[in-house]
Order: sequence, then C-alpha cells, then structure tokens
Amino acid sequence: MSNELLEFDVIAEALMEKASREGAETMWDRKKALKTQCGFGEQGICCRICAMGPCRVSPNPEKGPQRGICGADRDTIVARNFARMVAAGTSAHSDHARDIVHAMHLSSAEGPFKIRDEAKLRQIANEWGIEGSDTKETYELAHELAEMALLEFGKPFGTLKFLKRAPKVRQELWERENIAPRAIDQEVTTLLHSTHIGCASDYESLMRRSLRTGLSDGWGGSMIGTEFSDIMYGVPQERASESNLGVLDEESVNIVLHGHDPNLAEMVVVASKDPEMLEIAKANGAKGINVVGMCCTGNEVTMRHGIKIAGNFYQQEMAVITGAVEAVIVDVQCIFPALPNLVDHYHTRFISTSPKAKIAGDLYIEFDEHNPYETAKEVVKVAVDNYKNRDASKIEIPDLKQDTMIGYSVETTIGCLDRVVNTQVDIEGTVKPLSDLIWAGVLRGAAGIVGCNNPKTEHDYSHVTVMKELIKNDIICVTTGCAAQAAAKAGLLQLEAKELAGRGLKEACERANIPPVLHMGSCVDISRILDIVARVANERGVDISDLPVVGVAPEWMSEKAVAIASYCVGSGINTYLGIVPYVDGSENFKKLMTEGLMETTKSVFVFEKDPVVMADLIADDIEEKRKNLGI
Amino acid sequence: MSNELLEFDVIAEALMEKASREGAETMWDRKKALKTQCGFGEQGICCRICAMGPCRVSPNPEKGPQRGICGADRDTIVARNFARMVAAGTSAHSDHARDIVHAMHLSSAEGPFKIRDEAKLRQIANEWGIEGSDTKETYELAHELAEMALLEFGKPFGTLKFLKRAPKVRQELWERENIAPRAIDQEVTTLLHSTHIGCASDYESLMRRSLRTGLSDGWGGSMIGTEFSDIMYGVPQERASESNLGVLDEESVNIVLHGHDPNLAEMVVVASKDPEMLEIAKANGAKGINVVGMCCTGNEVTMRHGIKIAGNFYQQEMAVITGAVEAVIVDVQCIFPALPNLVDHYHTRFISTSPKAKIAGDLYIEFDEHNPYETAKEVVKVAVDNYKNRDASKIEIPDLKQDTMIGYSVETTIGCLDRVVNTQVDIEGTVKPLSDLIWAGVLRGAAGIVGCNNPKTEHDYSHVTVMKELIKNDIICVTTGCAAQAAAKAGLLQLEAKELAGRGLKEACERANIPPVLHMGSCVDISRILDIVARVANERGVDISDLPVVGVAPEWMSEKAVAIASYCVGSGINTYLGIVPYVDGSENFKKLMTEGLMETTKSVFVFEKDPVVMADLIADDIEEKRKNLGI
Repeated sequence: MSNELLEFDVIAEALMEKASREGAETMWDRKKALKTQCGFGEQGICCRICAMGPCRVSPNPEKGPQRGICGADRDTIVARNFARMVAAGTSAHSDHARDIVHAMHLSSAEGPFKIRDEAKLRQIANEWGIEGSDTKETYELAHELAEMALLEFGKPFGTLKFLKRAPKVRQELWERENIAPRAIDQEVTTLLHSTHIGCASDYESLMRRSLRTGLSDGWGGSMIGTEFSDIMYGVPQERASESNLGVLDEESVNIVLHGHDPNLAEMVVVASKDPEMLEIAKANGAKGINVVGMCCTGNEVTMRHGIKIAGNFYQQEMAVITGAVEAVIVDVQCIFPALPNLVDHYHTRFISTSPKAKIAGDLYIEFDEHNPYETAKEVVKVAVDNYKNRDASKIEIPDLKQDTMIGYSVETTIGCLDRVVNTQVDIEGTVKPLSDLIWAGVLRGAAGIVGCNNPKTEHDYSHVTVMKELIKNDIICVTTGCAAQAAAKAGLLQLEAKELAGRGLKEACERANIPPVLHMGSCVDISRILDIVARVANERGVDISDLPVVGVAPEWMSEKAVAIASYCVGSGINTYLGIVPYVDGSENFKKLMTEGLMETTKSVFVFEKDPVVMADLIADDIEEKRKNLGI
Repeated sequence: MSNELLEFDVIAEALMEKASREGAETMWDRKKALKTQCGFGEQGICCRICAMGPCRVSPNPEKGPQRGICGADRDTIVARNFARMVAAGTSAHSDHARDIVHAMHLSSAEGPFKIRDEAKLRQIANEWGIEGSDTKETYELAHELAEMALLEFGKPFGTLKFLKRAPKVRQELWERENIAPRAIDQEVTTLLHSTHIGCASDYESLMRRSLRTGLSDGWGGSMIGTEFSDIMYGVPQERASESNLGVLDEESVNIVLHGHDPNLAEMVVVASKDPEMLEIAKANGAKGINVVGMCCTGNEVTMRHGIKIAGNFYQQEMAVITGAVEAVIVDVQCIFPALPNLVDHYHTRFISTSPKAKIAGDLYIEFDEHNPYETAKEVVKVAVDNYKNRDASKIEIPDLKQDTMIGYSVETTIGCLDRVVNTQVDIEGTVKPLSDLIWAGVLRGAAGIVGCNNPKTEHDYSHVTVMKELIKNDIICVTTGCAAQAAAKAGLLQLEAKELAGRGLKEACERANIPPVLHMGSCVDISRILDIVARVANERGVDISDLPVVGVAPEWMSEKAVAIASYCVGSGINTYLGIVPYVDGSENFKKLMTEGLMETTKSVFVFEKDPVVMADLIADDIEEKRKNLGI
C-alpha cells in the first residue's frame, strides 16, 4: 500500500497535455475562456425571476442600487436564489428515486427487475405499516410498497413516512418550526412558488421553506432512493475494488457508466457478462468487457458489484482522453454536455439514455423500463462493436490505480462493528458498538464527507486533506459521491489507511477490520448517514444535534449539494462547505445560515475554504459537542 | 361614456410627482437606479445552475466564450433558463389551485367554506367519473371530488383528467409527442430535474419537457383553480362594476385586496359587510367600508361580487400613494416587496397573510384556513381602526374611473350568446352560436389578451392598443389578469365600446348585449379560454390549432406568463408576446419557438413589441386560419 497521497493534478496534467495535442477541449480550457466570473451572480444578487429584469443590486448597503424593480433587496434576492437551488437539488434526487420505485413497481419474479433483498423489502414494508408484511407474496408486497412510496412524492395529506426514523425530539422540532416536510414534489413546487415574483420576500421565511424542502430530499427522495435501490439491487456488502483511471484496461472493451441511476447500470453490468456480448468483444480482438464507473452510477455499482471506479466528476473528460474508452453510457445528472464534442476527437461513443437528460450531440438510446435488459444489451453492443475503431496511437492510460474497500451500507457497517462486540454481553446488529466507541472517546466523533468536485478548488485536494486531518484526530469519516471516489483514489478507503488515523480510530479500525474512511455510496446515499446518525441518537436518547457529528462538502458544485446541506442542517448537523453558495451578497442571509439557524434547527452552515482550517473547526465543534454531552 | 382612451400615464405622472414630494420611492425610481440591465441575463446566456459558475457565454457564435465550464452552450443555457421559468410559473398557478381545493376539502354546510355552486360541483364530479355524482350529499361529494383533485397534483400514474376536454386529435398529438402532462407537481419537479447540472442539454428536448409542464398548468393547475373556485364561490355572472384608482372613496375605509387567491378575499368581502366592522368604521368617522381589488385577487372578487377594480400590477404603489388606503391585504404572487417600505410614508397598513409569501416588513396575519372568517375580520379590523390615522393633507385620489362590465365565465358567455340563437331551431347552452358567428365570418376570430404590466413598455398601452386594433377587425377579445384591468380602465369592457368594433363584431355585441372585450377573470382563468376554445373545436370537429384564435400577452413580466404561453402553444394556439423572454441569446432556441414548434404542436410563439404591428400579424394569422378552414 502506498500511504502517499496522489499529487492531485498528476493525471490531469498529463492528460490535459494530451488533449491539447489532440485538439480536444476540456473544462479547464472553458474555464479559462470565461475569464472573470460575474460578481453579481457569484454573490447571488442578480435576479432574473421576472421579465422586468434582470435586476442587479449592489452588495454595498451604502452605494449603488439597493432594490430590484419590484423592490426585492439583496436579502430577498439571495434567499430566493438559494431556495431555488434547494428546490432543484431536491428535484434531482427525488426524481431519481421515483424511477427506482417505478422499477420496483414493474418488478416480477420472471422479469428483469427483481427483488434482490426480500428481507429489506419486508423490513421497510413493516416500518411503513403494511399489513401482512411478513407473509405476503414477495411481488405483491413489492408492488404495494412501491405504490405507497410513489405517493410519498404526491400524497395530499400528511408528512413523510421516514421522518419517524428521526429522534422524537427532532420530529417535535420539525413540527414546532413548521419544517416537517409533506409530499416531496409538493415541497419542491410550493418552494418554487414562494420564490415567484411578488411572493415571499422575507429571507427567514424563505430559509425555513428551503429547509423543509431540503428535508423532503434527505428523509424523502434520497432515503427512498437508497432504501428502494437496496431492495431492488441488494444491500451493499463490504468488498474490495480498485479506483482511478488506471482501472481502464488497454486490452478490453472499456465501458464507462456515468450518471446516477442504478436501474440502467445494473442491467449493463449483467449485459456485460452476456456470452453473446463477450463473444462479439472477443471477435473484435478484445480480451473481454471492462465496465467501470464514474460519479454516482459508479458508486451504485461499485457498492453492489465491486465494479471498479474510473474516477469522479472532474475525470469524466479525462477518461475519454485516455483514448481507451469504447463507450460512455450516461443516465442523469452531472454529465458534461461537453462530452459529445469531446468524443468526436476519439473513437468513443457517447450514449445518453434518459428522456430526463437528453444531451445534444449524443447517440440516444432511450432506456426502456419495460425491456431494460434489451436496452442494456443494445448499449453494450455499441461499445463492443466500437472496439475495432480504436486508434492505438491515441491510447494513454495513466498508470495509477489504488486498492479500495467499498460497500459500507448501514447494515454492513453495523455488521463490521459487531466484531468489536462482546458477544457474551451485547446484542448484535445495533449501533451500540459505534455509540459506545464514541461515548468512550475512542472515536471523538464522525464526519460525513460528501459532494462534488469544483474547479474553484484543486481537484480532490480539499476532500482528501480534510479526511486526513480528521482521521488523524480520531474522527471517523463516512463518505459518498465524488468525495468517496477522491478518498478511494487517495488510498483512504484501504484497510491500511488506519495507519493515518489517530490511536483510537486506528484501534477501532483494527478490531472491526474497516478502513478509517467508509464508502457509503452515491449522493442519494447520504440518507444512509442520516439513518446511522439517527440510530445512534435514538440509541442514546438524544437529538441528532447533540451528537459529535458533522456534515462536510469541501468541493461541492451541484444544487443537490445545496439541498443536502439544507437537510443536514435541518436535521441538526452542522455542515461545513468549502465553496460558498451564491449568498455572499446578503450579510443577513449569511448570518442566518451561519448563526441564526442555531435557534431554529440547533445547527448551522459553516463556510471555510481552507480544508486544514476546516478540519480544525470541525475538531473543535466535535469536542464542544462532547463537552455538552458530558463525555 | 368616454370612448377616448386614457392617456396611459396620466395617473402615474400626477401620483409619481406626489410620491416624489413625499419622499416615497416607486418602481420607476428603482428602475432608473438600476441603470442598464445586464445583457447576458437579458439574453438568457448566463448560467448559475451550479456553483462552478456563474458562466456567461457569448451571444456571438464567432467570438467570445462559447460554452460554460460544463460545456453548456448558449442553446442549452437559454433552454434551461426558459424551462425553469415554465416550472416556476406552473408552480405558482398550481400551488394556488391546491389551496382552493384544500378549502373545498374543508367545506361544510355550517362552516365558512361552503359550496356555492352545487350544479357545477355535480357537473365536474360527473365529468371526472365519480359514481353517484347526481345523488350524493353535497359535502360528501365535495370532499370526494376535492381528494380526487388533490391527487391531480401528485398521483403516481396517468395523465390529467381535464385533458379529456381537448379535442381528440389534440389529445392524440399530446400522446404522440410525449407531452401529455401527468401529475402537476411531478411535471414541475421532473422539469427542474432536467435542468440540473449535467441533465438535459438538448434544447429541443428541454422545450418539449417545458411544454408538458406548461400543459400541466393550463389543463391542470389553472383549470382546477378556476373550476374549483367556481364551485366554492360561484360561477361569475355578468354584472357592472367600475375601475381605476378613482374607485377609492375618500370618505370610506378603503381596503385594497391584492394578490391571487380568492379564499381570503371572499372572506374579506363578507367581513367588510359585518355590522360589527361597519360600526367601528362609522365610529371612526368613515361612511363605510370600501373594498377594492388589484391584480388577480381583484379579478376574482370583481367577477363574483362586482367589487370595484382599483388597478393592475403597476398601480399597486399608486394606490398607496393616494394616501387614502387604510390597508393593502395580500396573499400570494405579484406583490411588490417594496410595499412595506412605501406604506411607511403613509398611514396605510400592509398586511400579508400567506406563509407562502411572507413579506419582509409586513404586518403578518396568517390566514387560518380552519377559521378563515376570523382572519378576515382581523385584517378588516386593522383597516377600520386605521381610518383615524389618515393624514388629510396627503390624500389625492385621481378623478378617474370607468364603468365596466365583468363576469364573462364560459357559462355566462354561452348564456349571453344564446341571445343570438333562434330558439325555434337551435339548442341553447352551447358554443354553437359563437362558432356560427365565426364560421359565418361575422366574427373573424378570437383573441385572448392576457398578462401583466412591464415597465419595459408604456403602462397598459400595448394591452389597449392591440385590443382596439383587433376589435376594429371584428376579432372578439377575451381578457384576464392585468390585461383585463387595462381594458376596464380604457373603457373597453363597456357595452358602448362596441362602437370601436368592426361591423360584424358590433352587430354580435348588440344582439348578445356584450362588450367587444370580455373580462374572463384572473390569470388562472385563462383556463376558461382553453375551455371555450376546446368547446368550439369539439363542436366543429377540428383541432384547436385549426381555429382562428390567438393568445396574446403584450406586457407580460411574470414566470406564470411563460407557463401560460407554453400551454397555449402546446394547445395549438399561436401566442404573441410583446416582451421577448430571456431567449435572445440562442438563435436556435428562438427559431424553435417561432418556427420549429409548428411541427410539434402546430403553433408557435410570435415576438413583436409594437402592438399595432402585432395586431396586423394577428389579423393575418386569423385570416390564414380561416382560409385553411375554407371559411
């Protein structure tokens, strides 16, 4: 094992030079061409919400225009723009979850969509109060549960079912503060409505409504996305995999799965093992078919099948530039619209598959949820057929890959921690060992490190730095999304990374045989973090906000991250952001985010660009929480 | 009657001088302070959808940055921004409709929310296939229908019920083009998802998804808003009223109802007649309580109660500046956040009532849907108590008001047109007389003139000019929203305005005893226009796109107007916009809007700023449709 961190831009530099030689444009070329970014937009004080505008107000309360034409001031404009980010982020996670539930509604014993984890099906059905959850025929129950879940997006009355997982005191807080989310799509719609010209202008009210919508993501769309994916495709189990662009195989057909939704990806994984496909691949001179993952689709399939991780958000172009990729297959979210142009410089085929994300210049093969396996075979066939079009002179796969452990669902993590249990005394299968470790001070606390990449920071640097700093301080890290892939590439997801941990965490890692940073899945799987945190709080009879845990998004860029941050703060978790959202233009709103919310949700947003400073702040935060708990 | 149009800015000039004397700021001051508006925003080529940005691309395909960091080009950025306007507009109408249905769900024979039009209740229940619609107890049926309607916002399967009102051929087109809308909130959410970083970049696909979402407004949220308001508060009947700021009464307590939702407004109208309130008013020296309307709340209550119209969007500040308003009571949408500041210069109280639209600096009295009448009395009491605080030296009510006829719901319009029917031969109660008049060429066609005010054009000038030009050409106009109020103030809603009409329209007006411009209600009531147009198409066995009818929004500014325009075009109605939405930056997208959609929906957007030129284009359009119909 190499404990050395990567030089973060090593791959990029080599491949960027290659791209430049080959006339291919990357995000860095585009960033450079944009020159200075707009200061009004950056600060969130530009409003295009109606056609009287655009209106730009001054960030300075002493000088320049103070209000837009309707009278919206900087506080209102910033708060509305922020709210719209939350609404859009929530819509993305939730609309993804809807597709999973739809697939479950189509599942059958014979069909391509199957229930892989019947125990979890029955467990969730029980949790949601379906009669006969233990006895009903599997698919009858699955369909009933799916219909119930679909109503979570649109039911006319009541709040979300998964809210009940939170500690009672947190549920009461949500009720009291009027931020307990109702149907997910309703929350998105009504928040959007509130930001319409001439609706809410009170920034505190807009924040409150944003929190409620965000919570409908965390305890709604995202949690449904996670749990129902587990039912359909299996609860992730710990296993070994590899990461970074070196997982591309020069002698195989390389298929990059990119996007977010496991429905298609699962089928592609199966189709890539189809003898018919393998035969064509071999006939074309390839050794086999090498499916690798990128972004959250990558996380979904690595968690369940050990599919290798080619990279994260920022590497989607780099993968193509290796010249060794036969097809990039995408579904939804975080897919550069630049990819179709980029693949024109290589033999790579770019295939988009979702009507929700038709990408200009793509080869579009729509995912047919009634014949998902046929779609999967069709896209795999494009890839294998394309192997013969490789240009050997253009192939340059970086010699970098890292061993990595993955698969730490809540269930698996609990299973691992049972290894530290005294089986004579303790009950197995609960979070008690984890909370005991925290209460004993062996672990000082826990941090969820999540989120994207953003060219405003050095690629992966903040992710990896903050993780290294935290584990050194005996703060166990759980991670998802592009942050998890950053950790994987940096070697932090290996068992041996315990050597980088403080004494307590190292010991815990050894006893439980886990790495100090646990890969929990894709970005919807941040709901796993909510789940485990809620279990610990429940186990101890405290609120989530009492626990020494934090949320961290060092390099985020997507609106989903704004929704996530909002539901973390709404759930009582102090949330550290390495990139400031577009809120700098309103001192008031920023102060509400970073201080005022303590009164409402007992937690706040923290903005800090420097990951070392951020880690210090987190350590202090965690020690403060411990002190308050008297532990 | 004065056939002379107002000099459009007469009121504004006098009151603006007054405001200036009194140190009160108006939208014009703010517009001036903003100086030049941002060209990137104006053209829709600025993207803040993720935190890698903001990215601004060049409008010029030859020069400057062509793509944002992710690779989104001008087509993608413009299309996404447009889609988000549609989503937000749809959310506004629909979330308003949801509140009406919720009120119906709370209705009871004894309670404050009652069913006023049982016949319409039973008619819609029948239309939606509820068994026992003719026999069930009123409130049992109302609650059942309300629950069904609430599911239109969130049902997991199927398309919207009101789509069946459209001609079969149009329904088939929607299915074929994959734009038949499903649950309303789902359409909003999924469209928002599609515009997320790395989702849809294909501008045609984004347009298609925008059309579907827009259609969920027109045939969903808006239509539910209209029909259920009618059930709850009565189908509007033709009646006389008055309009313009002169309806403020110097000797009475003046209450301005402003916003969109009739739930509160209806209760305020009742509360203003409460003997207890009248007594306090009189004790304070007032003659009585004068409730007047503004924007669409104004339209709702004038249509059903003849409440006088104080003005439209642009006049919300002017009303306060008269110094004669005791309270501005608002609910949602199109309320200047500037009003709380403005009322500080006068004795006026500004009361906001909706948690969806909490306005900074307001007096907030939340509308309690369980005790709506108590809320209404409370806000009315604030107004009557405030009469004694008037500053006589500041009162200046413009001596301008206009008689006006209002109340032309579909049912009422059909009733009026029955006056031209030969009762010996024809069946009454259908649109046949209207279609006969059109087919005979007595009326050349019909135009729906709708939308807001926008300081980018002279106030009301475009509305009134285009109406005058069209009626001169025997094109009957129906109108809603701020356009209707413009027509009212200009005298076009009087019976005598027939003198401005061409020979055919004049004759029709005389026989049916209607004005040449018919006030159809608020902005959600554009669904009435869809309804009547669909009836005519069905009656003739043609598609809506075959009819000589157009949609027109000469001075729009709100995202609702973008949703409306999208559902009009999606329904086959060529739609003329006097303000170009933020799409100038993409030639491709603009061409799709103005030409390409003809293939998909058989109708297009038309952009034309000059109302005289616009009227010419409309007349040509209508004659072309007539030619194609062979009439």
